[in-house]
Amino acid sequence: MVSKNELTRRITNAQNSLNNIENSILLVTPGPNLRYLTDYKAKNLERLTCLAISKDRKPILVVPELEKLAALGAGIDEDIFDLVTWKEGSNPYDLFNNFEIEKVFIDEKMTADKLLAFQNVFNKSIFINASKVMTPLRSVKSNYEIEELKNVGKMIDLVHDDMSKIIQPGMNEIEVSKKIGNKILEVGHETVDFVIVASGNNSASPHHEPSNKIIESGDVVVIDIGGTSYSGYCSDSTRTYTIGKPDKDFIQYYEILKSAQESACQAVKKVLSGQQLDNVAREILENNGLGKYFTHRTGHGIGLETHEEPYVVSTNKNQLVSGNAFSIEPGFYIENKFGARIEDIIVKKENGFLRCNDSSRELVEI
Amino acid sequence: MVSKNELTRRITNAQNSLNNIENSILLVTPGPNLRYLTDYKAKNLERLTCLAISKDRKPILVVPELEKLAALGAGIDEDIFDLVTWKEGSNPYDLFNNFEIEKVFIDEKMTADKLLAFQNVFNKSIFINASKVMTPLRSVKSNYEIEELKNVGKMIDLVHDDMSKIIQPGMNEIEVSKKIGNKILEVGHETVDFVIVASGNNSASPHHEPSNKIIESGDVVVIDIGGTSYSGYCSDSTRTYTIGKPDKDFIQYYEILKSAQESACQAVKKVLSGQQLDNVAREILENNGLGKYFTHRTGHGIGLETHEEPYVVSTNKNQLVSGNAFSIEPGFYIENKFGARIEDIIVKKENGFLRCNDSSRELVEI
Repeated sequence: MVSKNELTRRITNAQNSLNNIENSILLVTPGPNLRYLTDYKAKNLERLTCLAISKDRKPILVVPELEKLAALGAGIDEDIFDLVTWKEGSNPYDLFNNFEIEKVFIDEKMTADKLLAFQNVFNKSIFINASKVMTPLRSVKSNYEIEELKNVGKMIDLVHDDMSKIIQPGMNEIEVSKKIGNKILEVGHETVDFVIVASGNNSASPHHEPSNKIIESGDVVVIDIGGTSYSGYCSDSTRTYTIGKPDKDFIQYYEILKSAQESACQAVKKVLSGQQLDNVAREILENNGLGKYFTHRTGHGIGLETHEEPYVVSTNKNQLVSGNAFSIEPGFYIENKFGARIEDIIVKKENGFLRCNDSSRELVEI
Repeated sequence: MVSKNELTRRITNAQNSLNNIENSILLVTPGPNLRYLTDYKAKNLERLTCLAISKDRKPILVVPELEKLAALGAGIDEDIFDLVTWKEGSNPYDLFNNFEIEKVFIDEKMTADKLLAFQNVFNKSIFINASKVMTPLRSVKSNYEIEELKNVGKMIDLVHDDMSKIIQPGMNEIEVSKKIGNKILEVGHETVDFVIVASGNNSASPHHEPSNKIIESGDVVVIDIGGTSYSGYCSDSTRTYTIGKPDKDFIQYYEILKSAQESACQAVKKVLSGQQLDNVAREILENNGLGKYFTHRTGHGIGLETHEEPYVVSTNKNQLVSGNAFSIEPGFYIENKFGARIEDIIVKKENGFLRCNDSSRELVEI
């Protein structure tokens, strides 16, 4: 549970971000931004639940009447929030009719039905993606958040540590993914977010969906898995396994990949941008003839979402700062042959870094 | 898997809905509408995946380059769709620069970041919630869809059938919810969508989140559960249990609720609106003094989403038609005492109805 102090600090920071902008409002619907600002994991239903933050005013949390008890039960503190309910059959957007607003900062995860309805109410306002306000806050993790990322990182490590028991040659990818899903819950996650089991040729598809393909001797198997803890923080870790001895070329390429991944992790100690960090892993793969097979960015931020700012990608020229948490996950994908990826979650510290994943990065033979 | 015939029919229907509207385009991002029109369960990531449908033109599916293999692997048929990829680091919205569009029908589940980006590209167009196009299609289920709803309904029944083994007095709500979650997967769902375990006083909160409260003798326990099948269709069923003998008043109220729920189901045989059907259950509860405790609508449509059109609610004056699938779930909630709900999924047929749930609606004593 997020402490009252931390929650108040987060809200004050959001209000301060709005302070330079006249008559502005921040509208946040259920999802990671709402969780960040309220610690309330509200359901994202068709009925409107919306946090409205503006400067010099107590934040208002609008909820459907029948969610009121759930909101209070989830710990919504009426010292911090004005809880406003709306009755089934009434129009919740009417609650906003009397606001005179110039700029509306809109939760980037708000669904279009709600955004279009708000554009109808605030029909003279300018609508702006609220990531401008939320990203600077959420991308610098507090000590509490770093602890939560370490905890959930340890959980997903336990799943990889168990992989040689989970995968048995002769099973298909879906069967393996189900066993992994159960294990992800067993080690303490609240939800299973994704389970990629990509074997043989399928390992050349970075986001392959588990299929009926039988896992057999000689296969490379890329396992990319993640879940969410009860506190809302996400894990995400990839390891590559082989069933028996793999192709000789593959072993050589994998060693190059391992060195690219390790070099990128070590580079986090330095002052550098997302672009520069992306380049560290990329250059090593390029210098060894694997550049054209590394078809995605090096990493993504992580926290209350699996993918969030900052991105470790050629287009991100912003400097990474202490408290940023992100994946480092270079890979190579050679169509109709094989692929591999190694992924850890890293937290940048002043002159250093912290690794949230510690399961073996060696090629594990099953 | 949805047949090519059915998929082509769905797309043609969507194109026909646009036919009366000049220079219009339908934009659909990952979610239930995309699943409906492509059978592709794409991940809803920050990277743009978007289906663009306009009249007299082969539908275009825009995907990030690194999702191409996943899209083809998921069965995207290039006979039906033009698959257009965009490279990491490029701006996918630029692909839409040359379209001259008057009206943009926007997937109601599209997230605000993408809608705001499209509003920037189509800066002279009118944006309209695409539910105007999609709802009439999705709310009338095909025979294939009705079979899938029946199948997934049978699955969730198996979980309720097992409830007296799952709930043991002395366990807390979270422990029970985890066991139920495992069972939901075991009986064949792909995902667990929600598990409400509301015991004792908590049963008076319709959307209670499982807590540490111990389930004990004399408690009423409302169990409202649902998951999604591998084909994408949702189950949703509520039953009310008691631990030992409940309060005498409660037994009497429950009998009234059961008769209200059954009467509403039987009323589906007739020609009536969502409002009129909502009224059937409500009147019986009102005539027996329970009206003020029934604080929500009677039901919601269901299909590729747990909550979709048509809604069985006082504001829905549209007639229900053959092929509509929806829940009938009256309840009563008496704060600081207890609550109950009974919920089945119903498909309206010509002069009849079909019930997707058949586990006992009697009060089950554990």
